[in-house]
Amino acid sequence: MASLLCNVYVGVSFGRPASSGAAAAKPRRMVAVRAEAINPDIRKTEDKVVDSVVVTELAKPLTAYCRCWRSGTFPLCDGSHVKHNKASGDNVGPLLLKKQ
Amino acid sequence: MASLLCNVYVGVSFGRPASSGAAAAKPRRMVAVRAEAINPDIRKTEDKVVDSVVVTELAKPLTAYCRCWRSGTFPLCDGSHVKHNKASGDNVGPLLLKKQ
Repeated sequence: MASLLCNVYVGVSFGRPASSGAAAAKPRRMVAVRAEAINPDIRKTEDKVVDSVVVTELAKPLTAYCRCWRSGTFPLCDGSHVKHNKASGDNVGPLLLKKQ
Repeated sequence: MASLLCNVYVGVSFGRPASSGAAAAKPRRMVAVRAEAINPDIRKTEDKVVDSVVVTELAKPLTAYCRCWRSGTFPLCDGSHVKHNKASGDNVGPLLLKKQ
């Protein structure tokens, strides 16, 4: 369930309930919804991190590409999604390119 | 700068400062660091979302694959990273597979 909260922060604050016997005051309610970045530090000088692969140039039968934005060999996968998933309860994994 | 906060929530709370003239009380300090999921709702019944592409079967000269976990056509890119980047200050983009 933690994963459902992953990219949105919702804060709800209510004021104190009206004292007993008084007319019910409408509770003060503040909701803040905030989108958060998923890439902590890969190529942050770039407006948008786009990578290209010319598939005819793939050297190996199988090459894994990162989708968790935590790989030390980005855009290639280095398995960092395992640590990320464990720490966060997430379920992300790489894109596998297969020559056949 | 918002992007630097992207996957970690840090909350810092200090107690009230000591009253003037009293010995300085050590401030109470709480720091919570929390890793957050980056995939809000794609195939959450799977432990790890891994996709495979047999590159010889690519139909088009260029095919974009999602890395923002917000595409309605996942694992393909549908441009959702644009909205995500705008809302969060992030800089993620797709992986482009080119036949040549």
